[in-house]
Order: sequence, then structure tokens, then C-alpha cells
Amino acid sequence: MSGRLLGVGTGPGDPELLTLRAVRAIETADVVAYFAKSGNASNARTIVADLLTGQIEEPLHYPVTTEIARDHDDYGTAIQGFYAEAANRIAAHLTAGRTVAVLSEGDPLFYGSYMHLHVRLAGRFDTEVIPGITAMSGCWSHAGLPLVQGDDVLSILPGTLAENELTRRLGDSDGAVIMKVGRHLPKIRRAIAAAGKLEGAIYVERGTMANGHSIRLVDKGDDQAPYFALILVPGWVARP
Amino acid sequence: MSGRLLGVGTGPGDPELLTLRAVRAIETADVVAYFAKSGNASNARTIVADLLTGQIEEPLHYPVTTEIARDHDDYGTAIQGFYAEAANRIAAHLTAGRTVAVLSEGDPLFYGSYMHLHVRLAGRFDTEVIPGITAMSGCWSHAGLPLVQGDDVLSILPGTLAENELTRRLGDSDGAVIMKVGRHLPKIRRAIAAAGKLEGAIYVERGTMANGHSIRLVDKGDDQAPYFALILVPGWVARP
Repeated sequence: MSGRLLGVGTGPGDPELLTLRAVRAIETADVVAYFAKSGNASNARTIVADLLTGQIEEPLHYPVTTEIARDHDDYGTAIQGFYAEAANRIAAHLTAGRTVAVLSEGDPLFYGSYMHLHVRLAGRFDTEVIPGITAMSGCWSHAGLPLVQGDDVLSILPGTLAENELTRRLGDSDGAVIMKVGRHLPKIRRAIAAAGKLEGAIYVERGTMANGHSIRLVDKGDDQAPYFALILVPGWVARP
Repeated sequence: MSGRLLGVGTGPGDPELLTLRAVRAIETADVVAYFAKSGNASNARTIVADLLTGQIEEPLHYPVTTEIARDHDDYGTAIQGFYAEAANRIAAHLTAGRTVAVLSEGDPLFYGSYMHLHVRLAGRFDTEVIPGITAMSGCWSHAGLPLVQGDDVLSILPGTLAENELTRRLGDSDGAVIMKVGRHLPKIRRAIAAAGKLEGAIYVERGTMANGHSIRLVDKGDDQAPYFALILVPGWVARP
């Protein structure tokens, strides 16, 4: 009798933003697994640390970080091999009858690393995905920013897009969330200005952490931003 | 000393998908307020029913449903007057020093009715927004459908858009969520086919309810759909 695979969303950072179902899944799991950069603590594990009371822990350490360029063939080969091996490690627990909770920051099936295990294992084992609060939702809530309403179109855009693509897509949406800001901030700022939406844009850094903050983008004087900062462009222009 | 305004996301339906913070907010609030159609129970209240142990309840009943066409001036006037009066009722509690938890299905600032109170009250009273699991997140988790990964662009689209607009936007995105399906299903189906994405599209009805189900859109033989059904078009085409 195989165990169950649970993809568990841990939310954006504040342990109070775990769902009741996520708490129960982690508390009753035999194994708790999580991805982490080699040499770093797992953010998802940090969020649930108070719930770890003796479950088997299965850290999954990424083998490559900056040693190989991401667009190099060797990067793809190394990372695919890593996901395959990680899936095998989880499968061994499941085959032995253990329930495995795989932690995923934010929401598991929304840009989450858990997805790489899900596509390799969900067809073979009984699987449940427990949704989590996304980082973007944590950020607009922290900023108290009404994002979209009614028939608004919302676009979720990576900051890696080319400047003219960003401008075009911002002009073609009511609301927008720009992720993966980091070193792309100057380009993103220009694209938002070109789309005529600089006035309402909000920059959010660590939106659901104790030391998080949000600021109007026009008031941010420098171009320093961590990779996981977000920019929110509100829709709902007809609001009262 | 005024009370605090809490915008509380109740998630998509399953009470187990409430966050710990939402539970605590509802349990400790002096007043619990919620929107409902006249003559109907509030879905959000149903989700949190087990947490209501004597708090003052403040139902906010919409004055208009189908009596006036939504594009008629009188509709806009009636609904704006209703939101203003609802805000006044909440403000009276806050001014009297009571903490008010306003329930919001899904996430409060993501297409939520709470937003109409937030824009009228957040500037005048101490306010906290507690994010919730969105309906779309509940749906793709229930369906076990990896939605977007890496540098994918995701579009959130209302089913009310014109057919050619839907087709264009679906072709211009990696992943997409189409909301407000209802009577628009035949049009949406044609638009997804025209964009070449029918094969992967998933139809989800009551995604986080006990009686919910999901099905490949190509396998759905009829065009009956409730207003709150969703269609998910997955991105991440490069997945292994």
C-alpha cells in the first residue's frame, strides 16, 4: 500500500498565512520534503519550522546555482537530472507507504518547484495539492492595494520580458503584476512609464515578512531590488 | 478609540482552506459583516459558520439583482448608494470601537466585493487585509493541473470579452484563466479552439466544494455552465 503525495502550499512567508489544511497535512505527514539552494536554508521549511516535531526531513538541494549559465545546455541537463533524482527519492518513500508532504512556497501549481515532482509522480501515486496564498496576493494585501475588479483583465508578467513587450502588455491590461524584478527594475520602470501607468504602480519588497515594505514606484529613488520583489499595477480605474 | 477594519479572505469554499490568521480574526472580531444577495445565504458566511459564536452579524444585502439591467444608469446609482450606505454601517461600528471582520470569498482585493468598502473606509480607520486562497487557485489545485512555470505569462480573462478578443489574448499568453463562464461557454470554447489551445483546457465547476468536478473541455459534451465555473488553460509547454 503506497503512501500519499501531498503538494503543500506554505504561503508567502508569514506562518499565520498557512491554511488549516496545510497545517494538518504537515503535522500528520511521515516525511516533509523541500527544495533549497545548496548551502542555504529552505524558505518553505522556515515558514513551517514550528510544525516539525520529528517527521523525516528530505531536503532536495539544487545542484547548480551560478556555476553554469542558465541558457547553457549543461544547465538544462543538470537540472532535469536533479528533478528526476529528487522524484526518485520521494517515490521511494511513497512506495514504502509513507505520506510525503512536499513544501512549496506560495501556491504549489503557480510557478512552484513542486510542479517538477508533480508531473513525474502524480500519475503513479495518490496525490493531493493543497493551495497556498501566493506571494502576489500577500503583497497586494500588505500594501492594501485593490488590484482588479469586475471585468478587469489581469496580466502576470515576468520582469525578464523585453522592454517593448512589457510596455505593450501593460498597455493591453487593466491590472498587472510584474515578478522577478531584481536587476530588471530600470527597464520595468521605463516600460510602466511608457504605458502611462507609473502613477499608480506600487513596489513591494518582502511583502509578507516582518521587515517587508511597499512604496509607490515613483517614490523609490534607487534601482536596487531583490529578485523576488514585485511591482503591482492596479486596475479598477472606474472605482469611486 | 476606533475599532479596526479587517478584510478577511475566506478562500474558495472549503473551511479547511481558511488561513490561521483568518480564523483568529473572525474568532476575535466584535462584528462579522458579509455581502449577500437579497433572500440568499452568504457563501462567505457559510464557509465560516463554525467560527460564529455570538459575534454581532452585519449582513449587507444587495438591493438590486435582476430588476434593473446592469448597463442602465439606475443600476449604477442604486449600487453606489448601497455601497455608500454599507460603508456607513461598518463605519458606525468602527467609530464605536468595535473590530469589524468583513468576509470576502476568495481573496479580498482580487475581484472581491470587500474592495468597495476598502476604498471608502481604509483611509479613515486602521485597516488590515488578510489574503485568502483564490477560487482559481482552489480550482487548479483540485484539478491537479500545473498552470504556469518559469517565465510564463499568465492572463486572467473575464468570459464576457468578445470572441475575437478572447482568441487574441489566449494566443498572446502562455497560461490563462477564464472566469465568469456561465452562458459564455460556447463562445469561450470557440475562442480557445481558434487559439489552438483546446487540447489542454480544463473546465472546473465548484472546484473546492465536496461536489466539485473538473473535466477536459473537449470531453464536456454540453454547454451548461454556472456563472462561477472556470476554464484553465495551462502554460509550461516545455515541461518534461
